[in-house]
Formats: sequence, structure tokens, C-alpha cells
Amino acid sequence: MTAEGGSTRVAPTLEMVAERAGVSRATVSRVVNGSPRVSDDTIAAVTAAIAELRYTPNRAARSLANRRSMAIALVIPEDTTRFFGDPYFAAIVKGISNVLDDTGYVLNLHLASTTGAFDKTIAYLLGGNVDGALVVSHHSDDHVLAELGSSIPVVFGGRPLDRETTATYFVDVDNPEAAADGTRYLIARGRRRIGTVAGPDDMPAGIDRLAGWQTAMTDAGLATDAIARGDFTLAGGVRAARELLDAHPDLDAIFVASDLMAMGVITVLRERGIAVPEQIAVMGFDDSPAALASEIPLTTVRQPSIEQGERMARVLLDLLEGVPTARQHLMPTEVVVRASA
Amino acid sequence: MTAEGGSTRVAPTLEMVAERAGVSRATVSRVVNGSPRVSDDTIAAVTAAIAELRYTPNRAARSLANRRSMAIALVIPEDTTRFFGDPYFAAIVKGISNVLDDTGYVLNLHLASTTGAFDKTIAYLLGGNVDGALVVSHHSDDHVLAELGSSIPVVFGGRPLDRETTATYFVDVDNPEAAADGTRYLIARGRRRIGTVAGPDDMPAGIDRLAGWQTAMTDAGLATDAIARGDFTLAGGVRAARELLDAHPDLDAIFVASDLMAMGVITVLRERGIAVPEQIAVMGFDDSPAALASEIPLTTVRQPSIEQGERMARVLLDLLEGVPTARQHLMPTEVVVRASA
Repeated sequence: MTAEGGSTRVAPTLEMVAERAGVSRATVSRVVNGSPRVSDDTIAAVTAAIAELRYTPNRAARSLANRRSMAIALVIPEDTTRFFGDPYFAAIVKGISNVLDDTGYVLNLHLASTTGAFDKTIAYLLGGNVDGALVVSHHSDDHVLAELGSSIPVVFGGRPLDRETTATYFVDVDNPEAAADGTRYLIARGRRRIGTVAGPDDMPAGIDRLAGWQTAMTDAGLATDAIARGDFTLAGGVRAARELLDAHPDLDAIFVASDLMAMGVITVLRERGIAVPEQIAVMGFDDSPAALASEIPLTTVRQPSIEQGERMARVLLDLLEGVPTARQHLMPTEVVVRASA
Repeated sequence: MTAEGGSTRVAPTLEMVAERAGVSRATVSRVVNGSPRVSDDTIAAVTAAIAELRYTPNRAARSLANRRSMAIALVIPEDTTRFFGDPYFAAIVKGISNVLDDTGYVLNLHLASTTGAFDKTIAYLLGGNVDGALVVSHHSDDHVLAELGSSIPVVFGGRPLDRETTATYFVDVDNPEAAADGTRYLIARGRRRIGTVAGPDDMPAGIDRLAGWQTAMTDAGLATDAIARGDFTLAGGVRAARELLDAHPDLDAIFVASDLMAMGVITVLRERGIAVPEQIAVMGFDDSPAALASEIPLTTVRQPSIEQGERMARVLLDLLEGVPTARQHLMPTEVVVRASA
């Protein structure tokens, strides 16, 4: 860790940058490594000092660290059943691999759903075995993942749960707006009694898509009483649809927060002899392969999951190379019309 | 690497073991770490010395290595499409996770299908970032994976491609015998013109299941001319079935080397108006969820994939802890009768 100390070479040292910027060595290191735990003013000061001294952050970063692992972790706090069952994860992994295949970095996949596995994973990530991490499908009790960002560069797929958190890099879609779009499509087609199957209330995608549905319904002067929650799985969609239909037999449309859950909703509707979309229209969310695998192909809100994975990898590479990048990256969405609505 | 050197404590040292066994320190280390590159005689000598001196290999292994990563890699040389598309991999990951969840080890998943990704992965695995590796779905051009075993403990899912290789730990089923069993079931039900859709000829499961079909057919005095090859995917099964049926329109049964391919075969048979099993019976292999997802539920050779993953993890843990374990572990198989044959 002291490879730069006492150096007599002409190249500018980390110490010189620290002195010029009026900060500590550790702070320069954090800026160089893209740690989010640095104020914008500090980043500006260090960046200016680096530019003035023509300092090469990469070389310094390499000598500062004992070694670089040339590995990037993808952390998914879900069990194997959910991981393999939801095509969203396959798309994210594919997107990340697309980008990393062209670099010197390997991708380490970590599934960590149980508390024990989770603690082990965090310890491993902080043990110098990876240079940075990507995190998707985080829940509210995964707050320790957000803390990771103070030690290694981390990019999240999906906004942080705490909206006040500004020191996090993430790639997401505008979930509230995308969900409102999908709901407005149903309203424009004449539907009025629109219920929703929302995602878990401890996940940003669950919270934000529900909020978007509520916004569109309220703006149109429609009731927002028909709500059931699922866990983004097909089985969860089946359970939520039964609950929703039992409580609200008068629905004429359902906005569902994921395609897998929408598949489950359609299974229940057909079971009950309800015509889709004639009696009840169904709108999904994702445009994953599940949208086409559904008994009735899904009209759905498309989010570009492969591209989201690609962008996550690129943002992390930027952080690792000390290239400035925005903290917040939003990908575009669109309503894709098929048979279910 | 010399933490044991000059130690004055009473506990026996690695040097003492080496001296007693008449081998080098490095050889003791290899035995302790379960490296396959040691002869059985040497293992016996070192094990005897360890027992006589009441030496504790774990403590030594820990001090020998600069650090332990407490991570185990699972290397799957396949792309994301095949990885997420074949339930076999989900079962293997689940089995491994079942065992590792109760230990201090984290599981790193590495998909490495492209040559570049492959080289990076090998470098990473040899860089001290993992303590051991599990490998499934290896192909003949993955011979470098077999070499891994000389540096870190490695357990393969499936026998090594080179049958002469004896210095490899693996967990497998008796594929030739299991495939012969499945074929004999078809013969016992009166089928005589039995074709096969085999797997790739650069993978042990592809080679061995074809050999088993050939053995059963030859033993029964039946012709072994109707062979097509697939790549263990559904699409590959569709292509192989078309090829097989075009060349051999007289078949009354098809033995297929995986359930996913058998799903594809059944799709083609129905497309052509051929009744399953009345006109052509279909036998799969795996008993994965694909067997039940098939249009006609599959009669299939069951291999216990979750249990195979569990066993692989246990064998590797034994190697890491210096517990003696067999090099070859065979799991049982059985024919599961459903609708397709």
C-alpha cells in the first residue's frame, strides 16, 4: 500500500495529487476508484489536481492496490428457483456478458438469498476478490449492499430503495412513468375498472410500478381500490389474481407489474372462463420471453433488460477506469401491443 | 509461504511430515490440498506420516497459503442461452448451493463459452481468488480445465473426456448403462426400429449415451444405423428429429439423450401427425422439469441432478479439508414411465 511512498521518479505521485487538492491520500484513492462516498466538491478538486499534474490514475490505482482481481461480481439476492425461473435475470446476465466479453474482466455470479449466504458474499466481495460489483433485484433488507459502495465501485440495476440516497450509481427505467403509460393505454381503450397486481413492497420495481398505476388512475378520476400483491413469480401472479378477482368481480382490466405474474393472471382468468381481452384486458411489464410464452401473448410495457445489463457493465467499467459518469441512468420503455389488451 | 519455517512450537510441522514420508514439502502440500497430481503410493506415505505425527493438515494448509478466499467456483463453459434454457444447470446449482449454504464458502458462478472468456476465467481461478472449482458441461476442447486440477482442487460433473485420465475427481452417472437401460425398456415394449438422437460427440454425456444405446441394440440383434446428433437444446432436438425421420421413416421408437431434445422430437412428431407413443415411442434422459413441460409427458431415464450437485460440493469440501475421498462417484439412475413410451 506504500508503493508510492519515497518514490523519486519524475511522474506525479498520489501524494502530490492529495497535497494539491488539499485532501488525504485515501480520498484521492476513493475518487480514483470511483467510490460514491465522496462529495461533488471533493471530486472536482481531485479531478482538477489530477489534470494539472498530468497524473495517471490507472497506474496509481494499480500500485495502490496490492493487486487487481480483474473480476466483477454480479450479486442477485434471490434463490435458484427465482433466478432460473425469471427470464429477466437471463437478459441481465446476457447484457453484462456482452460487454465484459470484450474486456479483461471475468464475471462472477453470486446468488445470495439466505442471510448466511448474504453475509459470506459481502465478506468475499470486500476481501479483494473482485474489483467492483453489479447488484440487481435488491430488497429493502439488503441495505448492506448499498454500503458496499463505500468500499468498491458498485452499480445497481434499479434505483436505491431509499430515495434520499444520492451517492449510488444505478441503471433503471422510469418505473412510475412506464407503469402510468401502460395504465393510460388501458384507459385509452375504454377500460375503467382497472385493478393491479403489484410487485413486492420492499423492492423499488414493486413500489414504483404501483405508484405509476395510481397516478394514471387518479389523473383519470378512476378508483384505485383494486390492488393485490405478488412476488414477481408466475405462482405469485396466480395467487394475486384469485385474491383480486374474488374481492373485485367487476374489473375490466388488470395492470400487472411483471410478465411472469401476468402469465399467472391469464391462467386464472381462463380457468374461470373469463375472456381475455374481451371481458378483462391484461397488461404485463417486461416484454421478456414470458410475454410470448403466455397462453395469450401479452400486451406489455417493454423494458430493455439486455441493454440495461450492458449499460450497468459500462457504467462500472467507467468507474473502474476513473472515467466520469452520471449516477443515474434511465433506459427508455414502450408499450408493446399483442393480444392480451 | 514459510510461516511454518523455524517454528519452535511443539505441534508437528509440514517439514516433519515431509521428512517422515520421504517427500518434499510441496508434495505434502499437494496431498493436503487434494491435488490430483500425486501417485497413490505417495498419498499413502504422506497420509501415514500425517497420522503418525498427529499433524493437523487444515491449520497447515491455511498457513501455507497466504490466504484462503473461502470461495468455490462453478465453471460452466456454455453461453447464457444454454445455461438459462436447460433445467439441468438450475438443478446442479441448487444442489451445490444446498451444501455450501451450510459452510463458510461462497459460490462463484462463471459462464465461459467464448475462448476469450475462457482464458480469463482460468487466469482468475489460478489467481488465488477461489479455493477450489467445480466444472460441469465440459467439452473436449476444454482440456485446460483438466489441467486446473494440478493447481487447485477440482471436481467435475461428468467423467473426464480422456478415459485414460485417472487423476481427476468426478461425480457422474453410469451413462452407458443408464442409456442401455432406457433402450432396453423400449425393446421390452416390443419396439424394434429404434433410432437415437445423441448429444454432441465432444462431450462425455453425448458419447456415453450413444454407446449405451448401441450396446443394448446390438445385444438384442437390432440395427444401429438410425443416428442423429443434437446439442442438448430443444432447437437441436427439432433439427435432429427432422433429419432422423427423413432418413429413417420406418422408426417405431427414438431414444433421445436429453429431455429438452426429446421435447423437440415430440414437437416434430406431432407436426407430422405421428402418434406418440402409438406410432413412435420417445424416451428422454434427465427427468428434468422439461419432462413434465413436454406436450406429452416424457418417459425418461432419471438422473438425480440436484443430488449430483450436492455430491460434487461434498467431494470438493472433502478435498479442501484433506479428507480422503474416492476419485469416481457414480449416482444411480432409473427409468421413469410417463406417457411418451
